[in-house]
Amino acid sequence: MALKTGSEYLESIKSLALEAHILGKKTDKVSEHGLVEPSQKAVAYTYDCAHQPDTRSLFCVESNLCKDVVNRFSHIHQSTEDLVNKVKMQRYCGIQTGCCFQRCVGMDAANAIFSTTFECDRKHGTSYHERFKAFWQWIQKEDFMVDGAMTDPKGDRGKRPKEQSDPDLYLRVKERRPDGVVISGAKMHQTGMLNSHEILVMPTITLRPGEEDWAICCAVPTTAKGVRHIYGRQASDTRKLEQWKVDVGNPVFGGQEVMTVFEDVFVPQERIFLNGEVDFSGILVERFASYHRQSYGGCKVGVGDVLIGATALIAKLNGVASASHIKDKIVEMIHLNETIYSCGIACSTLGEQTPAGNYQVNLLLANVCKLNVTRFPYELARLATDIAGGLLGTMPSAADFEDSVTGPYIKKFLAASPEGQVVDRIKVLRLIENLVAGAGAVGYLIESMHGAGPPTAQRIMISRQADLDGKMARVKELLGLTG
Amino acid sequence: MALKTGSEYLESIKSLALEAHILGKKTDKVSEHGLVEPSQKAVAYTYDCAHQPDTRSLFCVESNLCKDVVNRFSHIHQSTEDLVNKVKMQRYCGIQTGCCFQRCVGMDAANAIFSTTFECDRKHGTSYHERFKAFWQWIQKEDFMVDGAMTDPKGDRGKRPKEQSDPDLYLRVKERRPDGVVISGAKMHQTGMLNSHEILVMPTITLRPGEEDWAICCAVPTTAKGVRHIYGRQASDTRKLEQWKVDVGNPVFGGQEVMTVFEDVFVPQERIFLNGEVDFSGILVERFASYHRQSYGGCKVGVGDVLIGATALIAKLNGVASASHIKDKIVEMIHLNETIYSCGIACSTLGEQTPAGNYQVNLLLANVCKLNVTRFPYELARLATDIAGGLLGTMPSAADFEDSVTGPYIKKFLAASPEGQVVDRIKVLRLIENLVAGAGAVGYLIESMHGAGPPTAQRIMISRQADLDGKMARVKELLGLTG
Amino acid sequence: MALKTGSEYLESIKSLALEAHILGKKTDKVSEHGLVEPSQKAVAYTYDCAHQPDTRSLFCVESNLCKDVVNRFSHIHQSTEDLVNKVKMQRYCGIQTGCCFQRCVGMDAANAIFSTTFECDRKHGTSYHERFKAFWQWIQKEDFMVDGAMTDPKGDRGKRPKEQSDPDLYLRVKERRPDGVVISGAKMHQTGMLNSHEILVMPTITLRPGEEDWAICCAVPTTAKGVRHIYGRQASDTRKLEQWKVDVGNPVFGGQEVMTVFEDVFVPQERIFLNGEVDFSGILVERFASYHRQSYGGCKVGVGDVLIGATALIAKLNGVASASHIKDKIVEMIHLNETIYSCGIACSTLGEQTPAGNYQVNLLLANVCKLNVTRFPYELARLATDIAGGLLGTMPSAADFEDSVTGPYIKKFLAASPEGQVVDRIKVLRLIENLVAGAGAVGYLIESMHGAGPPTAQRIMISRQADLDGKMARVKELLGLTG
Amino acid sequence: MALKTGSEYLESIKSLALEAHILGKKTDKVSEHGLVEPSQKAVAYTYDCAHQPDTRSLFCVESNLCKDVVNRFSHIHQSTEDLVNKVKMQRYCGIQTGCCFQRCVGMDAANAIFSTTFECDRKHGTSYHERFKAFWQWIQKEDFMVDGAMTDPKGDRGKRPKEQSDPDLYLRVKERRPDGVVISGAKMHQTGMLNSHEILVMPTITLRPGEEDWAICCAVPTTAKGVRHIYGRQASDTRKLEQWKVDVGNPVFGGQEVMTVFEDVFVPQERIFLNGEVDFSGILVERFASYHRQSYGGCKVGVGDVLIGATALIAKLNGVASASHIKDKIVEMIHLNETIYSCGIACSTLGEQTPAGNYQVNLLLANVCKLNVTRFPYELARLATDIAGGLLGTMPSAADFEDSVTGPYIKKFLAASPEGQVVDRIKVLRLIENLVAGAGAVGYLIESMHGAGPPTAQRIMISRQADLDGKMARVKELLGLTG
Repeated sequence: MALKTGSEYLESIKSLALEAHILGKKTDKVSEHGLVEPSQKAVAYTYDCAHQPDTRSLFCVESNLCKDVVNRFSHIHQSTEDLVNKVKMQRYCGIQTGCCFQRCVGMDAANAIFSTTFECDRKHGTSYHERFKAFWQWIQKEDFMVDGAMTDPKGDRGKRPKEQSDPDLYLRVKERRPDGVVISGAKMHQTGMLNSHEILVMPTITLRPGEEDWAICCAVPTTAKGVRHIYGRQASDTRKLEQWKVDVGNPVFGGQEVMTVFEDVFVPQERIFLNGEVDFSGILVERFASYHRQSYGGCKVGVGDVLIGATALIAKLNGVASASHIKDKIVEMIHLNETIYSCGIACSTLGEQTPAGNYQVNLLLANVCKLNVTRFPYELARLATDIAGGLLGTMPSAADFEDSVTGPYIKKFLAASPEGQVVDRIKVLRLIENLVAGAGAVGYLIESMHGAGPPTAQRIMISRQADLDGKMARVKELLGLTG
Repeated sequence: MALKTGSEYLESIKSLALEAHILGKKTDKVSEHGLVEPSQKAVAYTYDCAHQPDTRSLFCVESNLCKDVVNRFSHIHQSTEDLVNKVKMQRYCGIQTGCCFQRCVGMDAANAIFSTTFECDRKHGTSYHERFKAFWQWIQKEDFMVDGAMTDPKGDRGKRPKEQSDPDLYLRVKERRPDGVVISGAKMHQTGMLNSHEILVMPTITLRPGEEDWAICCAVPTTAKGVRHIYGRQASDTRKLEQWKVDVGNPVFGGQEVMTVFEDVFVPQERIFLNGEVDFSGILVERFASYHRQSYGGCKVGVGDVLIGATALIAKLNGVASASHIKDKIVEMIHLNETIYSCGIACSTLGEQTPAGNYQVNLLLANVCKLNVTRFPYELARLATDIAGGLLGTMPSAADFEDSVTGPYIKKFLAASPEGQVVDRIKVLRLIENLVAGAGAVGYLIESMHGAGPPTAQRIMISRQADLDGKMARVKELLGLTG
Repeated sequence: MALKTGSEYLESIKSLALEAHILGKKTDKVSEHGLVEPSQKAVAYTYDCAHQPDTRSLFCVESNLCKDVVNRFSHIHQSTEDLVNKVKMQRYCGIQTGCCFQRCVGMDAANAIFSTTFECDRKHGTSYHERFKAFWQWIQKEDFMVDGAMTDPKGDRGKRPKEQSDPDLYLRVKERRPDGVVISGAKMHQTGMLNSHEILVMPTITLRPGEEDWAICCAVPTTAKGVRHIYGRQASDTRKLEQWKVDVGNPVFGGQEVMTVFEDVFVPQERIFLNGEVDFSGILVERFASYHRQSYGGCKVGVGDVLIGATALIAKLNGVASASHIKDKIVEMIHLNETIYSCGIACSTLGEQTPAGNYQVNLLLANVCKLNVTRFPYELARLATDIAGGLLGTMPSAADFEDSVTGPYIKKFLAASPEGQVVDRIKVLRLIENLVAGAGAVGYLIESMHGAGPPTAQRIMISRQADLDGKMARVKELLGLTG
Repeated sequence: MALKTGSEYLESIKSLALEAHILGKKTDKVSEHGLVEPSQKAVAYTYDCAHQPDTRSLFCVESNLCKDVVNRFSHIHQSTEDLVNKVKMQRYCGIQTGCCFQRCVGMDAANAIFSTTFECDRKHGTSYHERFKAFWQWIQKEDFMVDGAMTDPKGDRGKRPKEQSDPDLYLRVKERRPDGVVISGAKMHQTGMLNSHEILVMPTITLRPGEEDWAICCAVPTTAKGVRHIYGRQASDTRKLEQWKVDVGNPVFGGQEVMTVFEDVFVPQERIFLNGEVDFSGILVERFASYHRQSYGGCKVGVGDVLIGATALIAKLNGVASASHIKDKIVEMIHLNETIYSCGIACSTLGEQTPAGNYQVNLLLANVCKLNVTRFPYELARLATDIAGGLLGTMPSAADFEDSVTGPYIKKFLAASPEGQVVDRIKVLRLIENLVAGAGAVGYLIESMHGAGPPTAQRIMISRQADLDGKMARVKELLGLTG
């Protein structure tokens, strides 16, 4: 079995001829679209790492399913060491790409489905687990990129799925047939969708008896009939389509977001992993969410490393690297970034084996991890803005820099420390702009807030997992209270 | 004397036929450029307010110079009540435009120059004060828009102006002639430049003996020979040039930034207000900065009001307005916003009369005000992002909304609370995006950090103004220490 | 009419022969008790200030009631300037005493009752306002110290007054007689009680129809029959009773807290200012609370000044005053302290005249002020702890310092910078300890949290006062929404 | 070899007949002193845990030195799992005692000396490592309590040891003799000193050539000739000596601090582990500090658990447990506490083996851990104060509660939720007071700031360990910079 290289992956995804609507136009050459390309390159990077000598050992791991070496992004975690290595791998990808590399969602979905199907089968006598193992073995063998699709549109937040004016506002089974189901609805905020071969569809909330139609988990090809992708806008996105690339900020990699509609999509039985068992919907959601909250303890830390590196570099290029307040702010950035990383590592170390045999993160600490992710990147961005200086919001365009009239003025007046050239200073500033107020901020700030669930979701989980009763009991004991 | 209306202002500025380089192209129809237009409308709004029945009393005030009614934006403050009203007026403009309305800089420069020239004349026997009064009376009479230009490129931050490899990295007097001076250099981060009739050039730092060439304060028309404007890029700026305007976020108003080069610009004597008197450079800088730090206690609060209003509105449209955690976060946004306002008001109330007769803000509290501005808008933006939801980073474009194929899907799946329509939800989300990660974020976040000087500048001023020795003396007295 | 001096006040309060239970013992020589003395000295200081040449103009003001000069602590505010001066006076007292000087509560109660009774009379035809004016004129004339008593025990927080197992858990009218009322209950957290001549009793919450018995506002002498005072413990309180005073920290002044029981206390008609008019209970509570939240924008800032001064001094004595991180932390302390002050000033400047003629603070900003007080002093205390060093928690006692065996070792090993003596270093450290983890921390930290109501009370008021609807309306208008 | 029980430990320490000066009096019955007793009980608890069925497996571990089972508090860590278990054990002790249990310092010192002596020997041909192994095997065999003594008085912070007016301000070798050395100086902030059998003396800073006399590491019995202990005062300490114990807060356990003088103390050769090798002083300091910064990621979290439990309990007893803002604040407390724990776990998981064979924590993350400890406990204390209510600063004494006159009033008016009795409410409030503003605050707040070094020390280490150059290099590579 051969792990794909980055270029093999790109070929493979190109051959799918995915269709999407992008900024009002339909295209079936998604892979060649200037908006999509940086995002596919980020995914490709995760493939290349399985081949690079210095990263191979971290990215390659023996699968428990196919007994062969797979890319860790397709791995079912077999130990807490695997969980720790997952986070290390994610941080590495983050610092290398400076953006969301999108391949975690499928990995997190697979691990959650793996253990949930096992327990569902045990209780309900279903046979989802073997089905899923077979499916996932295929994924591992093909070294496919898989998107995990959880978030439903949710319509009126005050109402349950069946109370919505439109039942499709939560993705649902519209028809149950002997050979499969027909599903209808949409999934929002799909980061890796256009770069994926397959989609793992999951429910978005804990469902209750009577809501069986919404309790569906299944695999769907990204090119399936009835699947339709609509591209999401991001800050400064069209700079990627301009002539001069410097203004993009991140010259190689980038993220993207898609809204995917499922219009009467047929899913055959062998691709169904939950179908009406409402009592396992919440477990699936919770586990996926926790894995994904752990993920952020790696990937966002890696992007944070890029922001810290860029900030230290601009301080140097501005000639202020040795000022004590600058150094102090950079230490603060590092401190906050490493605090997130600590949470990512800790929830991995304290993970536990599930009945199905794979390893689950510590639910409490994974949520603590993500809650910090909803805060600290914002402070890193603020400090980076402080150090970078006002040019972040006022610098002339690359086109003006290249212009024969204005270019010399810009070179003359943007000269700073003799340690670097003006063009370097511009590039570093554009990278910082990308992360704090440009396309990269969608991944680094907005996604840090809402990806894997908003902060309130984490707070609820923290409240449930914290054994508050145990703490109160200990205090009563210490004080000798009888009540 | 007739105060201009908004449209008279627009006519007047259009008639200047200002030239600028914008995104690699030269244009002499700046006023008609899609990137500039929203910014001129924001300035025009400040003119209209002098005529609206409900704002007239706040915006119109009797000038001490021409003894006629002028727009408060051209006023020399005559009392602490004037200072308080300035802040109220700025908050009002902020909430009405949702962006930087640019007209404060000239007002703040004028008030700083007014008192500094008086004291300089008293010490050095110069006659800048009368000159400036004459000049400013003309400004008031014409009801002109004036840009204050302070920030030099600064080159290598570790070096003084004369040590730079290029002396122009700090704007300087290149030649002194009987009838005036020739200046050379550039001014960065010029917000209102393209919408102004005149520029008040000021030094950027406290200068020392031997640095007389950089101690220049003078007035220059924005269209003067040798003056060249290069447009600054901002996040998502080109959305303003697209067909569908919804994606811009703020449908009417907006900000912009310009880098202005002064290449051998001749300034006649009657327009010079400081010329080599290095001992008054620091005073001028400090006073302008403090007025401008006070300004942020009004304008950014107004923009904060817009962000709070938009956030409350999206909570309603999402159907979550009554959730306790949502309400709590909105209270927090209000609290932080009003804390800034309190600082703006307090530094005005505790202002003092200068020897020249106009009123100066309390220097300590004006700096405290601005230092909070470098923090709280970031937290407001974070909370708004939290409440708005992930769509902030993933919502399809207006073009897709208008498209006959994708439009219906977007309408179907973005439906939320029955309280509003999908298009309203989209508009409110785009406004929030504008302020937290789009073109508006330049004004609301980056400018909040660096406009009127970065936080370190405020910390230095706070340290100087806080009478730490007095506090230590009181403690010694309380403890009966003899040392 | 002669304003009392500090010593005349002390004589006067001593002559009352107040009784109290203190640490398990009953005493009728309260004024001579070592725990009470520092607290009375702090009150006395407010009397002396009306006589000192440099403070007289701030502390003396012409009364609208008696048309004579009164101490501002007894003044009914006649302008926003009066409100601003109130805050300035409080900051001054705070920096001079380094503790709670207790005299604000009566002033704040009087101003709230003044305007509430006027409006109650207008609506209900009662005659409370004239009664109160007569009463307060007498207070001004006698220059008495008055305690404002609001906080009821409140019992089970989930229940209304009449649902409590014991109706006295909210202070109430037990009997209505032709000549007056008999009241029963208790008031908690009474800071100035043992140093006061009179008590102004007020309701603690907004009452509803059917709860008329709890809607009582009246004046009671501190020595009235049925009134009983039980002393509250504070951290390190008994150090005040030890031989060596250095360990107390603040060598002169201090605070205290008392729980006061009202057991069938008779109040004659002329001392009753609200009696069953439930619709004015909430107004009274809200106004008193807002005045008192403004007060904290002065007094706590003054104590903050002491903490800042002591911290700067210990940095000097430790020999680290010039370290950049030390200077930076002190700037941060100043910044936070002045931010509170700004709120105190701003809610005064934007105050408004009530129908009764006196001036009310701006309710929104007064609550913003207090909400900051529940946060920033904690950060000041944390920073002071950081700079002071570990000795704050480990320093040997004054007794050991005075001991012939251990004293020399302490002198030898606590020697630091040559700028000061060891005993000075010890004194400054003890003062900081007093404020961050000793008796003073009750006033500076716990009272900052709960005095004038806990943070949640301020959040509710902020939410009510912020005109959120107006902000939403403006956003709708800007976006052209029709909904 | 038998591990001591708690009572055997107490007997053993009592038999030492340690002398100390406490509050101005010399005592040789330290173990019976009311101030010391709670502190010894906390240490005794760590001994009992090695015998309790449910804790034995965590506290007992096979020693690499004596190949026998030892208490983990005496263990030389043999794996990252050992490091993780250390933190788990510390959290457990923290939640059980609610205070500093003091036994970590010796463990941390031993592990640092173990690896440092190995490397020193390798370089300098000394034989400290075998000496130390022999010494520590004896400690393990006797199951002794060991204090680690690092912090010197430091005198004038701007001067090196030899520049001080008194060379003893850094503990030093005063005389080198064939059979050993004579040392002179003092160690500050010694938490476990009075409860220890032995002291491990270490240098306090990185020393330089020429400062050999201060580069001393050795073992000294706590009762050695010339050793003198002077007790440190703590907030509310004397409550421990009063009749009614409720006011103490923590009814069983407590902390204490001592200043220990070394006056010409002779140390024989076999107890010396560093003697003049200045190049290993910094390594020893850095390692000990990092182990100890890891420790805080366990012990302070445990005390945090107590504070959280007490806060949740008082919310219940106050009848407000179900209020959303209360629940939210408790979640915040948990979140912050678990963030610290995550750092404690992560720096353990990412620990590495030293050349000597034992395991060292990850230096970067251990410092990140401690830096969070200098912040979050303060916020937990603030939130606990918020929820507990004003009684925290105003509640009458236990003596008044027991008094026949005042007791009934206190019972009547402090009644709250029917879920608990008044005395329970008082006890819980006193426990919270203990931790936020009483004797416990020394351990929970002041020690969290300064124990294991103040925040600035952590910032320096973070700055050194963060590979900022690597981050900048990655950014250059990503941007294709050549500079």
